[in-house]
Amino acid sequence: MSTHREVHLIVRPDGIPQAGHFALREVPTLAPGAGEIQVRVSHVSVDPAMRGWVSAVANYAEPVALDGPMRSIGVGDVTHSNDPRYAPGDVVCGLLGWREVATVGADAIWFRHDPAHGPRTRALGVLGINGITAYWGLTDVGRPLAGDTVVVSTAAGAVGSAVGQIARILGCRAVGIAGGPEKAALCRDAFGYDAAIDYKSEDVAAALAAHCPAGVNVYFDNTSGPVSDAVLPQLATGARVVICGTAAVASWDPWPRGPRPERHLLVKRAAMQGFLLFDYRDRFAEARDRLAAWLAEGRLTYREHLLDGLDAAPGAIAMLYRGENAGKLIVRVGPGD
Amino acid sequence: MSTHREVHLIVRPDGIPQAGHFALREVPTLAPGAGEIQVRVSHVSVDPAMRGWVSAVANYAEPVALDGPMRSIGVGDVTHSNDPRYAPGDVVCGLLGWREVATVGADAIWFRHDPAHGPRTRALGVLGINGITAYWGLTDVGRPLAGDTVVVSTAAGAVGSAVGQIARILGCRAVGIAGGPEKAALCRDAFGYDAAIDYKSEDVAAALAAHCPAGVNVYFDNTSGPVSDAVLPQLATGARVVICGTAAVASWDPWPRGPRPERHLLVKRAAMQGFLLFDYRDRFAEARDRLAAWLAEGRLTYREHLLDGLDAAPGAIAMLYRGENAGKLIVRVGPGD
Repeated sequence: MSTHREVHLIVRPDGIPQAGHFALREVPTLAPGAGEIQVRVSHVSVDPAMRGWVSAVANYAEPVALDGPMRSIGVGDVTHSNDPRYAPGDVVCGLLGWREVATVGADAIWFRHDPAHGPRTRALGVLGINGITAYWGLTDVGRPLAGDTVVVSTAAGAVGSAVGQIARILGCRAVGIAGGPEKAALCRDAFGYDAAIDYKSEDVAAALAAHCPAGVNVYFDNTSGPVSDAVLPQLATGARVVICGTAAVASWDPWPRGPRPERHLLVKRAAMQGFLLFDYRDRFAEARDRLAAWLAEGRLTYREHLLDGLDAAPGAIAMLYRGENAGKLIVRVGPGD
Repeated sequence: MSTHREVHLIVRPDGIPQAGHFALREVPTLAPGAGEIQVRVSHVSVDPAMRGWVSAVANYAEPVALDGPMRSIGVGDVTHSNDPRYAPGDVVCGLLGWREVATVGADAIWFRHDPAHGPRTRALGVLGINGITAYWGLTDVGRPLAGDTVVVSTAAGAVGSAVGQIARILGCRAVGIAGGPEKAALCRDAFGYDAAIDYKSEDVAAALAAHCPAGVNVYFDNTSGPVSDAVLPQLATGARVVICGTAAVASWDPWPRGPRPERHLLVKRAAMQGFLLFDYRDRFAEARDRLAAWLAEGRLTYREHLLDGLDAAPGAIAMLYRGENAGKLIVRVGPGD
């Protein structure tokens, strides 16, 4: 019987998942059952949301089971299909998990990657979870109007960099907040932000006041924490805050405290709303078409950071939370481009 | 020259305004100028928002000037008019101030009270700021659907009691949170809440879990503070939180802290949005028509608490924040019904 390797969750972390919470295991490769397809995984994604997926704290999804494969988005080649929608040779993206071979129900597959859209790794980033999150989070929850000032936290990250560029394409002024002078420079030079703030060395409140003289119309928040606390008092009347991630919160036990937001929301008649990509599954194609067109026109760019081999996966979430990646973090599991 | 009495703000309070922050003064009664009208004030309103109006902290309106009349909503009889829209004998409601005679620009007037709508004090409460706030805050920001569970803080208050009744009229389940067994009983017996929680004696989180088994679809928040902290973890997916007031926060200096809300909003894809009545001035009539019809049909009820004489006004805001009023708090300044 043939076997393949998988990364299993073996200890449930309290905070940021570290390499030691996972183990690489050799497991038998089962034949796909009725309605299932088998995928030879080429690349898997490393995303901030994975921290929530392994947590036992209430979430939008069931916690990843102990001693089972780590949930992750991946891309790969269909090798067997018992579902009429997919055929061997298709390149597909979906919840494949951190493993070399995924045998999954067809509903785990989100979409087929079109080779005309460029390298398949785009299906994990700018044409996948990150780009789609940026597109729908900004346009459907943030609802920016041309001329608005859009502030983005983790502005150089895989989601943030797309948000800033989309805001500019939509005629907005984009102000990025990122950690360190290199990332701030990347915001300005690679991603076209009108201004970028390094929260590690600058006074964020003062810099925001300087860069957003008419206030913040849209705040696309990937962090929570002190950066958000500096943005909220500077909201413009009628502002929209998109709650997309909470990267700055190291642990939810004990529950973190901060300045109460109610009065800012009341005085500015502002709205703060959570965004979850999975609610938009029926609208992925619409976002991907727009994003692919902007990529083809050279109006949208992105950065990737590839790690080699499945054994690099267990430590990758912690690396992401330490901010050491320079672009969308992807683990190459096997051949394919 | 004739004179009248006014209540002036003489000291800017840090927290809740107390009687000592005001002084009763006899001032000359000036003739109305071009475009102005003169009103003999019969009743003035005491509202939680007045705390914000006297504060120097940034707000949606200019702070009330020191040594000038306290801003307040009032109702009274037009005695002189230099504006074609109003005539002597009209009963009008608007920003008249805590005084016996108001000489104001016609844009200070919000609406004419229609005697067919009942006693004029209704123009200060259920057919005025409170009822309109409840109507538009609930329907336009809370957007309840029949079958939703609507939770209301300060549920027996002038706004809260209307919110709970409107929620029931719209086919929702209404759960009220109020302070003390008398107010909880009032919620159930007078205002028709399906359930009421006394936050002073009950475990709010446990009571909410019992009364809202499918979670909270709409939270109409008049308080902020610990009551809100118990509600937020129990939001249902897609919930709407209406931020209408912050009665539980005694002072904004230092800025109060609390459990961060971002993760609740993210996991539940919930929205938290500030509501300000003054944004709805063009839609007051629509709300008043609906509310007046429900009053006439006996589907909507209210309580009033009248104090006698302008000298009762200075201590009335503090009385309101101590929760000692039994219904909409109104000061009777002169004759009129």
